[in-house]
Amino acid sequence: MTDKDYMERAIELAKGGIGWTNPNPLVGAVIVKDGRIIGEGYHRRYGELHAERNAIASLTESAQGATMYVTLEPCCHYGKTPPCTEAILENGIRRVVIGSSDPNPKVAGKGAGILRAAGVQVDEDFMRKECDSLNPIFFHYITSRTPYVIMKYAMTADGKIATKTGASKWITGEAARNKVQKLRHRCMGIMVGIGTVLADDPMLNVRLLEGKSPIRIICDSHLRIPLDSQLVQTAKEYPTIVAYATDLNSDGEASVWKKERGPVQEVRLQEKIGKLEGLGVQTLMVSNGSGQVDLKKLMEILGEQGIDSILLEGGGILNDSALRAGIVQEVQAFIAPKIFGGHDARTPVAGVGAELPKDGILLEFGKATQIGEDLLIEYKVRQVERCLQES
Amino acid sequence: MTDKDYMERAIELAKGGIGWTNPNPLVGAVIVKDGRIIGEGYHRRYGELHAERNAIASLTESAQGATMYVTLEPCCHYGKTPPCTEAILENGIRRVVIGSSDPNPKVAGKGAGILRAAGVQVDEDFMRKECDSLNPIFFHYITSRTPYVIMKYAMTADGKIATKTGASKWITGEAARNKVQKLRHRCMGIMVGIGTVLADDPMLNVRLLEGKSPIRIICDSHLRIPLDSQLVQTAKEYPTIVAYATDLNSDGEASVWKKERGPVQEVRLQEKIGKLEGLGVQTLMVSNGSGQVDLKKLMEILGEQGIDSILLEGGGILNDSALRAGIVQEVQAFIAPKIFGGHDARTPVAGVGAELPKDGILLEFGKATQIGEDLLIEYKVRQVERCLQES
Repeated sequence: MTDKDYMERAIELAKGGIGWTNPNPLVGAVIVKDGRIIGEGYHRRYGELHAERNAIASLTESAQGATMYVTLEPCCHYGKTPPCTEAILENGIRRVVIGSSDPNPKVAGKGAGILRAAGVQVDEDFMRKECDSLNPIFFHYITSRTPYVIMKYAMTADGKIATKTGASKWITGEAARNKVQKLRHRCMGIMVGIGTVLADDPMLNVRLLEGKSPIRIICDSHLRIPLDSQLVQTAKEYPTIVAYATDLNSDGEASVWKKERGPVQEVRLQEKIGKLEGLGVQTLMVSNGSGQVDLKKLMEILGEQGIDSILLEGGGILNDSALRAGIVQEVQAFIAPKIFGGHDARTPVAGVGAELPKDGILLEFGKATQIGEDLLIEYKVRQVERCLQES
Repeated sequence: MTDKDYMERAIELAKGGIGWTNPNPLVGAVIVKDGRIIGEGYHRRYGELHAERNAIASLTESAQGATMYVTLEPCCHYGKTPPCTEAILENGIRRVVIGSSDPNPKVAGKGAGILRAAGVQVDEDFMRKECDSLNPIFFHYITSRTPYVIMKYAMTADGKIATKTGASKWITGEAARNKVQKLRHRCMGIMVGIGTVLADDPMLNVRLLEGKSPIRIICDSHLRIPLDSQLVQTAKEYPTIVAYATDLNSDGEASVWKKERGPVQEVRLQEKIGKLEGLGVQTLMVSNGSGQVDLKKLMEILGEQGIDSILLEGGGILNDSALRAGIVQEVQAFIAPKIFGGHDARTPVAGVGAELPKDGILLEFGKATQIGEDLLIEYKVRQVERCLQES
């Protein structure tokens, strides 16, 4: 067994925390002595022990003189738990191999420094790329304080997310749909537009045996969400946030739609908000000043609430707004082996669109994975980085 | 070296003929004696020696008692060259390992039988899948007598083949565009719709150093192709076929557009045909009776002319018609890492489209390959098989 083998084991362990540690990172640790693993652990759940302490708790013998492999630099501050550097020193560990540095520039290298000062041999940046790839969400959130947004869509090989009649059940196969359930479990929030709510009346929960349902966020500029929708009716069970943008008029009133179709019925905004809140829905007024939800501001508010990640399962219009607002970090496109055709069938990103090819939003290809009969293509959004660099 | 190594070498050799042997198959052959390769060859070009005879011609010593590995069952009939079985027997080869059987059910097994009857040990179906995958074009053409059609398109990650303004230069990168040049070289024909001609005035040739330009086929129901288009002007250099569908009226006349835009100018159909033919264009009247080109009938006519393969670089409308006509065997979708967005941007398959997801055309995923920054997804069209089974 080499350093690489041990770190790979630590990475595998870290993945055990997917969906449970947010907004904390995924971290795994392995303790090795005389060529044997004598302890291992990972950060299991937000608020519980860090990976290093779990590994130490699992020790089968003294760690005196041992080496610890840990995917992320050990913390050196008092948070919900005392600093891991202390536990490492107390147990006589003589060498620490670190994957990712602490993403907080003010803290990065401090944990390693404390260990070194105490005479521990510290190797940093070991398999850093692999370790970093565990935590795109954490790294983004900790530096920007806004959620890491993954735009997910399922389309046919000819780029359609629904047939011309709007039907979309189902485009991908069961394996791909299970993968989406895992994505929902991984993210703290899930976001859709009101169009999806009115068309499908979805639950947006996780139906996996061992899964955590995300906080449901609905972009609903004119507060059209029906009180009898599944989302509203189950809001006491699953946290639900409705972001709207209907500005109040001088009388403190505004017209909103109670229902999408049927006779137009104006109700007082405050009355609808009151009813929604009574049913357990959190309402957020986040206007861009033109009657639409300000997505950038919404992300800041959700970030303040501790939401580190959002799975965006929008239709073409919300996807377009989100991309243009620069809030999307990653794209996960499922491609089904079928063709719908249709001049009027919907595509994943609608809106006004680019004038010329050079005006398109640039992505960075990550990988393509076959999932059942479908293909999942993962991209990072490049534009966002560019925006951040420019600002 | 094992049987597998030798057959893999034969497969590699066979690929040397890509683009040059049509409508003949790609075939490679290796002759082995006492664990040494003593001869190898492939079918280089239509009308020239078969792979087996090229391998024999390259012999560095007597093939008495040797083994031949050949990707396709040796022929046993007098065609442009005498049967390969004769050459094998004349040279004293004692064992023949065959990949693909002859796709012609009337001939399959005959070559192997002749060899066996003469005392040669024959192993059939060895690495058959790999050998079969050399010749989807040949196998389709020889059994159906219609061209194998590959629908190729380049789209963004959000399914657009052009921006909302119709601009499409460029969607994919240089590596992907080079790959398309190789595809053009591989196919005997290339087909586009008149819309592409009017929008881009393309040449549709191969710009590779060592490449063969395909026969250019334009679907142009109302014979709108401009006489001053590049295609027409270079028709004496590159074979060009225009399929139209304007039925003659009782006077033997029909109205066709001379130009797409500008003042409508009616010209006599016969006059336009005469001018086109004078410039070297072959015109084909192939009407479906409703003023559109009958694509199925067109494929039969092109097949009769010896065209075994067509690269379909259509826009959304022609692609839709071709898929619905059941003439497409394979889809090659290039996916660029960018997003155009746009409700009105064009997608690879337009037309009326499916009503419900279950009505979509089914594909069979082949493979996904990264080409530069783009991804190429290859599919077989399943629907066609189903149609053939039903008929």
